[in-house]
Amino acid sequence: MIKVGIVGGTGYTGVELLRLLVNHPEVALKAITSRSEAGRPVSSIYESLRGHLDISFSEPDPALLASCDLVFFATPNGTAMKMAPELLNAGVRVIDLAADFRLQDPALWEKWYGMPHACTDVLAEAVYGLPELNRDQIGSARLVANPGCYPTAAALGMLPLVEAGLVDASSLVADCKSGVSGAGRGANAAMLMGEVGESFKAYSVSGHRHLPEIRQTLSWVSSGPVELTFVPHLLPMVRGIHATLYARLRDGAGDLQALFEQRYADEPFVDVMPPGSHPETRSVRGVNQCRIAVHRPQDADTVVVLSVIDNLTKGAAGQAVQNMNLMFGLEESLGLRQVALSP
Amino acid sequence: MIKVGIVGGTGYTGVELLRLLVNHPEVALKAITSRSEAGRPVSSIYESLRGHLDISFSEPDPALLASCDLVFFATPNGTAMKMAPELLNAGVRVIDLAADFRLQDPALWEKWYGMPHACTDVLAEAVYGLPELNRDQIGSARLVANPGCYPTAAALGMLPLVEAGLVDASSLVADCKSGVSGAGRGANAAMLMGEVGESFKAYSVSGHRHLPEIRQTLSWVSSGPVELTFVPHLLPMVRGIHATLYARLRDGAGDLQALFEQRYADEPFVDVMPPGSHPETRSVRGVNQCRIAVHRPQDADTVVVLSVIDNLTKGAAGQAVQNMNLMFGLEESLGLRQVALSP
Amino acid sequence: MIKVGIVGGTGYTGVELLRLLVNHPEVALKAITSRSEAGRPVSSIYESLRGHLDISFSEPDPALLASCDLVFFATPNGTAMKMAPELLNAGVRVIDLAADFRLQDPALWEKWYGMPHACTDVLAEAVYGLPELNRDQIGSARLVANPGCYPTAAALGMLPLVEAGLVDASSLVADCKSGVSGAGRGANAAMLMGEVGESFKAYSVSGHRHLPEIRQTLSWVSSGPVELTFVPHLLPMVRGIHATLYARLRDGAGDLQALFEQRYADEPFVDVMPPGSHPETRSVRGVNQCRIAVHRPQDADTVVVLSVIDNLTKGAAGQAVQNMNLMFGLEESLGLRQVALSP
Amino acid sequence: MIKVGIVGGTGYTGVELLRLLVNHPEVALKAITSRSEAGRPVSSIYESLRGHLDISFSEPDPALLASCDLVFFATPNGTAMKMAPELLNAGVRVIDLAADFRLQDPALWEKWYGMPHACTDVLAEAVYGLPELNRDQIGSARLVANPGCYPTAAALGMLPLVEAGLVDASSLVADCKSGVSGAGRGANAAMLMGEVGESFKAYSVSGHRHLPEIRQTLSWVSSGPVELTFVPHLLPMVRGIHATLYARLRDGAGDLQALFEQRYADEPFVDVMPPGSHPETRSVRGVNQCRIAVHRPQDADTVVVLSVIDNLTKGAAGQAVQNMNLMFGLEESLGLRQVALSP
Repeated sequence: MIKVGIVGGTGYTGVELLRLLVNHPEVALKAITSRSEAGRPVSSIYESLRGHLDISFSEPDPALLASCDLVFFATPNGTAMKMAPELLNAGVRVIDLAADFRLQDPALWEKWYGMPHACTDVLAEAVYGLPELNRDQIGSARLVANPGCYPTAAALGMLPLVEAGLVDASSLVADCKSGVSGAGRGANAAMLMGEVGESFKAYSVSGHRHLPEIRQTLSWVSSGPVELTFVPHLLPMVRGIHATLYARLRDGAGDLQALFEQRYADEPFVDVMPPGSHPETRSVRGVNQCRIAVHRPQDADTVVVLSVIDNLTKGAAGQAVQNMNLMFGLEESLGLRQVALSP
Repeated sequence: MIKVGIVGGTGYTGVELLRLLVNHPEVALKAITSRSEAGRPVSSIYESLRGHLDISFSEPDPALLASCDLVFFATPNGTAMKMAPELLNAGVRVIDLAADFRLQDPALWEKWYGMPHACTDVLAEAVYGLPELNRDQIGSARLVANPGCYPTAAALGMLPLVEAGLVDASSLVADCKSGVSGAGRGANAAMLMGEVGESFKAYSVSGHRHLPEIRQTLSWVSSGPVELTFVPHLLPMVRGIHATLYARLRDGAGDLQALFEQRYADEPFVDVMPPGSHPETRSVRGVNQCRIAVHRPQDADTVVVLSVIDNLTKGAAGQAVQNMNLMFGLEESLGLRQVALSP
Repeated sequence: MIKVGIVGGTGYTGVELLRLLVNHPEVALKAITSRSEAGRPVSSIYESLRGHLDISFSEPDPALLASCDLVFFATPNGTAMKMAPELLNAGVRVIDLAADFRLQDPALWEKWYGMPHACTDVLAEAVYGLPELNRDQIGSARLVANPGCYPTAAALGMLPLVEAGLVDASSLVADCKSGVSGAGRGANAAMLMGEVGESFKAYSVSGHRHLPEIRQTLSWVSSGPVELTFVPHLLPMVRGIHATLYARLRDGAGDLQALFEQRYADEPFVDVMPPGSHPETRSVRGVNQCRIAVHRPQDADTVVVLSVIDNLTKGAAGQAVQNMNLMFGLEESLGLRQVALSP
Repeated sequence: MIKVGIVGGTGYTGVELLRLLVNHPEVALKAITSRSEAGRPVSSIYESLRGHLDISFSEPDPALLASCDLVFFATPNGTAMKMAPELLNAGVRVIDLAADFRLQDPALWEKWYGMPHACTDVLAEAVYGLPELNRDQIGSARLVANPGCYPTAAALGMLPLVEAGLVDASSLVADCKSGVSGAGRGANAAMLMGEVGESFKAYSVSGHRHLPEIRQTLSWVSSGPVELTFVPHLLPMVRGIHATLYARLRDGAGDLQALFEQRYADEPFVDVMPPGSHPETRSVRGVNQCRIAVHRPQDADTVVVLSVIDNLTKGAAGQAVQNMNLMFGLEESLGLRQVALSP
């Protein structure tokens, strides 16, 4: 059994992680910390966990965390980079679900996140936890940066095209739509149901923090420069991301359906749908799955990729569990074989 | 492994049953029939099942069904009563998720369902599949009538009070609210999202088919006559039932919280919440659970019970799996330990 | 033209009032105050008002307010009772959309609102602004207490029965459901769409502030004592209240449909629907209308009344404009003849 | 008063038209036809119209329609082209809210709509009813083709850029999202709330009928060839369209904000929002308004335009009333000055 600690378990990412871990056969949950809720049973805050979990939130206790095999950080940006080094020194492995270790360039991190990076040495060894790209490195990593939700959906949809050099990577468009849970559980008038129910809008068009992360991932696999226009939108629903991706095909692009099917043939959590499909976000709600369809409308030179995930599962906690499985040599899909609710 | 057949697997109850059965460790799915979809892979209709189920819908084949240990009917009302007798004769056990065997009085059935009952002899041996009331009989039953969704929520909320004779059973009120999936998957302009989104209304106030079913259940445990005003409402959401139940307390009602806690102390799927609680339907979404809170506002003589279930899980397919587990001597919660999504 | 001021225009009630007043032919809007937003154009906060209103929020200015003919308070509870006396002395008439003047008994007010009443003398002259009950007094009132949203829906549904003495007023049940806008626009994690979307629950079952208000209204017209069980619920939608009301009929209740039709025959904003109807909340969205249907299921002795309003319109700002029209001798429906969106 | 007839008033477009016309001061409604509902009062089908409209659906009566000044067609595609010629001959003016007269090339119409055009001579004189482009021609038109919903949102967002020749019109992208009311009121299992609630997906990526219409409009104002990738998506809400438009800027694009502000300076129903804005669909719900924001992220060479309308109002019935006002020399905004509900 893997002894697991969670730092910051009160947000949506934290409770999603708990949902997956309480039924994971190889996990023993040792600690869930929350300064604000210390002492309260987890199930008193999350009704859904009543009967599944008999543990209370605790103050962060370095010794207790240091006794774990693995610590997940489900904290706001800027926390993990302060606590991770000590844990790593104590031999604990770390998966950060926040953004602290996602951008390899500390200057870029500081630009987008508004604070200097606290441990650039540790940052240098962090592995970007997208298993479909970095499976082997994740397996041996001490520190995994769990990808952002939009970057997961966008990268999985773009990777085959950019890797194969079939598109002009300097003029990509990612039109992405997310459910409201992506904005977290903090009190925020802008996310009241009275504000976002029955409505739809774009946000952060001038620049969103996930932009450099998507660009970084695609740059790793591109032979040329990567430029991206990324527009996030807010959907009037709770969970789910839909990325609609546009790219200009180079001449001789070939069979795109086959390209995608081959690229993801062995991936347990990427489902390339039949030609002509339109994946629905509900088909991945609560499950660690990405479903993709690739289109070439009117046989013109713009390819359209549709990519859906659950922002809290494959876009956060599910992918973190997938990474944990890889890091500890377990079957990659252990604890992750749920079927999405339908309807 | 239990060899299982499903008749009529294309509706919401059918796909929910599939969702639960594909991960059930003791079930081997032998057949799913649908006249309209015969030949099509199940996962081509239900995207959520892609990768989990490699079976196609088939025409109903009596021989194949007769080779099963158990057949679930997820058909419209009136189908199971025609097919069940032959299967029972062949030694197959049957769980009907429709209403054919719910009302013990054939005349009452005919009155509310508008057709004569096709097999009154078989009806006489059917066991009403509410485990919290009929656990032992279910275990040995050949034919189980799976309860309706509203009746499950209402009965579980009322049972302790009526059994103990603490309320005037002749003036009960059940104000119930259901998500739209309760209306099924048939094309119906009244259930378009354009009609029911962002709106709320009551329906069938003059009389709903679940009224006699609730009355029947409560009559079994009541020492006096049972009269009930039942008003169903339609919620602008997909899953979930909330029953708000009102009853007049007799003198000396005592500690209602303790009454409920004791009544359901050993029930794996009924959660009596702490005093002052207000269960949310989302806390049981997709799980086979009923959560209940009991209130006595202003210490007056009206007791208010709040009871929530997922109409498709504890209100249909989950309860059917629970009944299957009981019928085949398995642990009652096998395959039913999922945690509800939150948020 | 009536010179109008609004104190506290940043909440949902305030913007709804603005929506109605900008198109009202007899209103000249002189001031909208907000300490937090002073100096900002109203339309910079409320996109919907762009092009309709060229005014900025201002600090509350006693002299400016005193120059108005009418001041609406769309403030939190406890504000109007501090400012109203001075305005009344200056000859300004006042409509309070908060609760400060709704309960005539100061002790009751203090019990439910947790603070002593600041101007009991003024409270004594306040008129409860339910036109269907107090039309004449409203016309001559200096100070009108605009009713609460639940109390409007519940009272209009119960009034005919209680006035006529046809029901046992000592055992009434009001099962009410409201959209989320009733909870206001303040930052509140419990009202995030991530918390209340796709879910349903009761709240404040032990006692809600609108309970004494409903009881007070019904007591005015009842010949006997009034006791009420009031359970509010939260709907996963933005606007609308549905009250489902239950009462025990006395012998010889007669033709309830005719009773309701006659009671409201001359009311411009109460629509008694045909027998067998189930009013939808969307049919009154954004309009100053209450639609009512009366049922007597199975001809038993429980009457069920369905009553729907928009919590922000007939339940707040629309009713306030209706009261304004009455106070200033205008046609009662002036500026209030919009048709609800459908769908 | 304009004598108005409506053919096919039972769909969402029809009832939206009624909502606007019943309060229009210059309209006298003479007939609303519906074969399926002939004889039934309109308000018995549309609760929202109770008290506002005292007319019944009737069988289409050529003589009665011929006595009108104006007939609106709110029928399925293919109906208006059969009935319009006779009405025009009788001196009646016609606005078709369906697609029959939107594409000027009959061959293109036949390709996308699957039937030959029934009156190509009349088609030749039809004016495309986008006032922001064709105001003068609309004023003198006998027959107006009311634009589609997506084409309205997309064209208004793209027009300034394409007219000015600032973008490469051969590689445009229109990523559009619509509420479910765009799919109409017909019984259709795919549009059940159980299917489309809490989910999001693209559809018709291979080709949607509004693609040639958008291309036609932009071609009228472009100096070069127009190519467009158009991807429609379905939002889990009732009303609203959000078009997110992407184009490659040519060198020296200049001040885009000023370009849009100048282009629409005199337009009563196009609101160019301040720099950095993100219009919400709810800000135009139920109103005949288009709100637009123009962005140039990271000062790169891709311009992003956000354009929102209500698909039933500016995208259908509201624009039809705007066209009617122009055709009959009325003030363009008569009957169209409502404020959107907020929240």
